[in-house]
Amino acid sequence: MTLPISTREQTYLEVLQYYARQMQRLDDGDLAGYAATFTEDGEFSHTPGRPPARTRTGILEDLVEFHRRFEADPMRRRHHFSMVDIDDGDDGSLTATAYALVVALRPGTAPEVRASCVVHDVLVRDADGGLRNRSRVVQYD
Amino acid sequence: MTLPISTREQTYLEVLQYYARQMQRLDDGDLAGYAATFTEDGEFSHTPGRPPARTRTGILEDLVEFHRRFEADPMRRRHHFSMVDIDDGDDGSLTATAYALVVALRPGTAPEVRASCVVHDVLVRDADGGLRNRSRVVQYD
Amino acid sequence: MTLPISTREQTYLEVLQYYARQMQRLDDGDLAGYAATFTEDGEFSHTPGRPPARTRTGILEDLVEFHRRFEADPMRRRHHFSMVDIDDGDDGSLTATAYALVVALRPGTAPEVRASCVVHDVLVRDADGGLRNRSRVVQYD
Repeated sequence: MTLPISTREQTYLEVLQYYARQMQRLDDGDLAGYAATFTEDGEFSHTPGRPPARTRTGILEDLVEFHRRFEADPMRRRHHFSMVDIDDGDDGSLTATAYALVVALRPGTAPEVRASCVVHDVLVRDADGGLRNRSRVVQYD
Repeated sequence: MTLPISTREQTYLEVLQYYARQMQRLDDGDLAGYAATFTEDGEFSHTPGRPPARTRTGILEDLVEFHRRFEADPMRRRHHFSMVDIDDGDDGSLTATAYALVVALRPGTAPEVRASCVVHDVLVRDADGGLRNRSRVVQYD
Repeated sequence: MTLPISTREQTYLEVLQYYARQMQRLDDGDLAGYAATFTEDGEFSHTPGRPPARTRTGILEDLVEFHRRFEADPMRRRHHFSMVDIDDGDDGSLTATAYALVVALRPGTAPEVRASCVVHDVLVRDADGGLRNRSRVVQYD
């Protein structure tokens, strides 16, 4: 028996792939590529006690500044998202929640689980129909 | 080219989202909400050497008692499921298998991977068409 | 509103389940079952500095030899894949990328995250329509 897929299910699949591509950009150090996944007026709260970065340009500037602390450090980070859930948001937007395990890697040492967070996203469609983050709040337990 | 989705594929997507919601309830301390994901006659084996909890009420009582040990502990747990596989079970039920990484978090300390388990579920449809656990066996390696 | 699923989306779902089954075989010590997920002329690079294993038979021989070092060790490994992304490859093949967290488990000790890798696969269809690895390169950060 076959059924048509609902828009909800199709969107769920899109979100899974969107996260894979988005976070690979960040983990590969492509800060501009990561910032480009936000809307022009996007908002990104990634660290408790640090005010959220606003606008795509502002997010990129904030990321560049934030990553400066890692410059002398050969550390690489990998963000493993799981437990993705989606729901309808306001104004045709989509809310998405995911668990994220942040693993830090340094040459010659064992991987270190640095953080386990819950990521709260509001996602919208851009003009091309692709997904973008209107906002992201990273909640540390 | 487009194809209709099979019921199997649709169910797979449902299971992914079901797990995300189910485990967020548990991780957020909503024990009643977690117990409600089981059928009335559900069965839950979560700890080696501890007899399985039976019936939704019994599962809730067992969880409340089990979590008492964490009461004075500001620990939070996050269950990261991955590698979900599904298959047909008996009587129209569904068997589902997933890996689970259990991460424990305490304020001011690094996250700790407490357990890596394999979760064996039998899932059925409730009257509303939603998924519920008829049983869950957590296997520790 | 319902839509037909695209072949891309259907394939994405297949890949998720394929990975779950493939890696459970490896983690359960079914080396022949794991090798059988490769094409006859498949290629597998799993360890930096070790030449890739070639052909299904060669992959199995390589795995048997590689796992000999674990024989006296009651260690069990679990490969948690996440962040799966797929794209079109050459000749009708499919490229797939995933993050893998390798967790090592020994009786009586806490789980240990041994590695966080990026897995680069080329997947093709076998005569039955199922997926197989034409190649897999495991990249350690």
